[in-house]
Amino acid sequence: MSEFSITRLSSTEENFDTQLENLLAWESVSDAKVNQIVDDILSEVKQQGDAAVVSYTNRFDLTTVSSMSELELSPDRLTDALTTLPQAQRTALEKAAQRIRQYHEKQKSDSWQYTEDDGTMLGQKVTPLDRVGLYVPGGKAAYPSSVLMNAIPAKVAGVTEIIMVVPTPRGELNQLVLAAAALAGVDRVFTIGGAQAVAALAYGTETIPKVDKIVGPGNIYVATAKRAVFGAVGIDMIAGPSEILVVCDGKTNPDWVAMDLFSQAEHDEDAQAILITPDVDFIDQVEASIRKLLPTMERKEIIEVSLRNRAALILVQDMDEAIEIGNRIAPEHLELSVEDPQALLPGVRHAGAIFMGRHTAEALGDYCAGPNHVLPTSGTARYSSPLGVYDFQKRSSLIMFSADGASDIGGVASILARGEGLTAHARSAEYRIKK
Amino acid sequence: MSEFSITRLSSTEENFDTQLENLLAWESVSDAKVNQIVDDILSEVKQQGDAAVVSYTNRFDLTTVSSMSELELSPDRLTDALTTLPQAQRTALEKAAQRIRQYHEKQKSDSWQYTEDDGTMLGQKVTPLDRVGLYVPGGKAAYPSSVLMNAIPAKVAGVTEIIMVVPTPRGELNQLVLAAAALAGVDRVFTIGGAQAVAALAYGTETIPKVDKIVGPGNIYVATAKRAVFGAVGIDMIAGPSEILVVCDGKTNPDWVAMDLFSQAEHDEDAQAILITPDVDFIDQVEASIRKLLPTMERKEIIEVSLRNRAALILVQDMDEAIEIGNRIAPEHLELSVEDPQALLPGVRHAGAIFMGRHTAEALGDYCAGPNHVLPTSGTARYSSPLGVYDFQKRSSLIMFSADGASDIGGVASILARGEGLTAHARSAEYRIKK
Repeated sequence: MSEFSITRLSSTEENFDTQLENLLAWESVSDAKVNQIVDDILSEVKQQGDAAVVSYTNRFDLTTVSSMSELELSPDRLTDALTTLPQAQRTALEKAAQRIRQYHEKQKSDSWQYTEDDGTMLGQKVTPLDRVGLYVPGGKAAYPSSVLMNAIPAKVAGVTEIIMVVPTPRGELNQLVLAAAALAGVDRVFTIGGAQAVAALAYGTETIPKVDKIVGPGNIYVATAKRAVFGAVGIDMIAGPSEILVVCDGKTNPDWVAMDLFSQAEHDEDAQAILITPDVDFIDQVEASIRKLLPTMERKEIIEVSLRNRAALILVQDMDEAIEIGNRIAPEHLELSVEDPQALLPGVRHAGAIFMGRHTAEALGDYCAGPNHVLPTSGTARYSSPLGVYDFQKRSSLIMFSADGASDIGGVASILARGEGLTAHARSAEYRIKK
Repeated sequence: MSEFSITRLSSTEENFDTQLENLLAWESVSDAKVNQIVDDILSEVKQQGDAAVVSYTNRFDLTTVSSMSELELSPDRLTDALTTLPQAQRTALEKAAQRIRQYHEKQKSDSWQYTEDDGTMLGQKVTPLDRVGLYVPGGKAAYPSSVLMNAIPAKVAGVTEIIMVVPTPRGELNQLVLAAAALAGVDRVFTIGGAQAVAALAYGTETIPKVDKIVGPGNIYVATAKRAVFGAVGIDMIAGPSEILVVCDGKTNPDWVAMDLFSQAEHDEDAQAILITPDVDFIDQVEASIRKLLPTMERKEIIEVSLRNRAALILVQDMDEAIEIGNRIAPEHLELSVEDPQALLPGVRHAGAIFMGRHTAEALGDYCAGPNHVLPTSGTARYSSPLGVYDFQKRSSLIMFSADGASDIGGVASILARGEGLTAHARSAEYRIKK
């Protein structure tokens, strides 16, 4: 392995703020060529339906099918994938699904109403989405955990139908992905991918039903297509590279911390792994662990590039400052690798998920802790939340005025409407005022 | 007034589905020229800060200021606007603010945690956004109600600071808007608008602090700028034209229904007003009321264009079918103008707000019923919700494994991580397994 250096920062340096800003800077590339290709695919699928989807699939996934019916998997295929799984994998998948379901049950919102003294009722009705599309990447990056994390909250919300799409380049199918779909209760699976799959879900075709929202990760073509169809359907967030911030008091085993940093760095050369600690010796220890362990890692090339370009070991004056810098970073994953993480929790304002205590490896959360692994990246934890049941439910306001209530409040509405020059509004309210 | 016809449809016609689809079709125009202008403004403000904002403001709002400090209103200006308001307007505004606050208090989410048998804690921490930007249009369409509807939920959520921007073309300031800002607890107000105001809020300048989310309506430049900065900051939805769907049993005063349809049609020539009823005679009665009342309306030109191009009177076989077609429309505003609206409610799946009973004019909801008037348009009620306190709070997952819990679940994570080829994840989990 080549020698490489990992950025070190110290909060007392004069230009620390600028250095931190530069470290965090990330802009996803918006490529005019990709946009054009995606626009063409979207408009073809919108106009030609199944025929366009079949044609793009043959072209991009190197298949040779002649109709959409060959691109749908039967429910038996999913069940078979689950039942033929090695027992250890099946048990692990079932355990994960059970814990994810149990956690997400706590996120369900209910409708509510209240009645005022004059009989006027106000409230909010909570309704699940009718139909959701789930994009699952194929090939190398086929993640069964992602199927569970996206499909289970939708099912818990009460979504009637989940349509999954997963490309099968050269016909390759991942049995774990199909098994996860069976476990999560996915309703239909089409073996299509790319912008053509997003278009089919957004607009509907003769065979593929139009959905209300599309969720799930994908490559730049999928992300660009999701952005483009937003409005016609809902979408989840567009994820940036993975991030982990470990805040440590210096008393966790440095090998553990190094491996936790690796666990995000191995995702992607653009992934970002940061350690913040008030203990300068601990920075040396973790760096030594990194150099010791890196050569033993299967994905060492990816990890090395990620660490070289985007990682940092940050020295701070105390834990309060560590937490405050953590808030400025607003990381996707925050590990509080300390003795008493509950004591630090009130100060944490911005993070996708908070992993508390030395035993809570971020990797546990990726698979089976229960909470979702689809989390806000690139500082968007400042204003957004983990994927959850709430993303598959929506609300309608309820307003039912009694005759007295309408008469009373009609006068208020009339004054305000006339103040805005909207006299049809005013007169509509005035009709309900008792003479 | 010129003679004009209003579209009539009947659900039993053979091509009804296609007719309905054409009626609802709406695409916002994406204009390359607007995009270019907005991109230029965003990048100028990002690079030049205050200087660019001052320069664009002088150019677009025909002002002659020399520095940003002239573009901030003092808190006294807001308080003065409130105290000098005519008493009836002040009382109406206060009543509206009080009802809006009271309703939105019910939407607050709290953090939660639970502990499993082995001591593992899972939960979700709910945190308000730090700082929110509120865009308020200036000039003709200056709506104080919009200030209340956007700022109050943010304050209820616990947002620390609300920065309002409102353009003042030729120096025109709307006293009602400033009074509403005072009432709602807006923290700072800058008299800037357009894409330059959105850019200032999204990126920050020397004077204007960077916000975490931008909400509030605006023209095509504002909407385009909001779309462009999304990701750097959060945004609320991009609203399409207003819509109302009145579902009526034929027994409401047809003048009331006509005026309710007008109250959306007067917003905008593209607004959409639809009546669905199983009573063919009632369609005639409402149309007669429309023709009788339209000449008396201040905004009759706008209303007529809206009715001519986008309205429809739809005859259905029964109320069940009315509700089902209502779900297909997924309107922003749904009036259930019937005797027993509670009986119909379970069937309603998709609507931004539901106005129940003959006395509940949609206009009451626009100002002072309590629920928000920022609602999903163009069928997006299929997957999205009214603006609410939940838009100003976000969640962080909490995971704290006990040593036993981590040891137990570490094995599950390890199997799943190895199934995905992510061995740093696996080894990070395995470190926590007790030997």
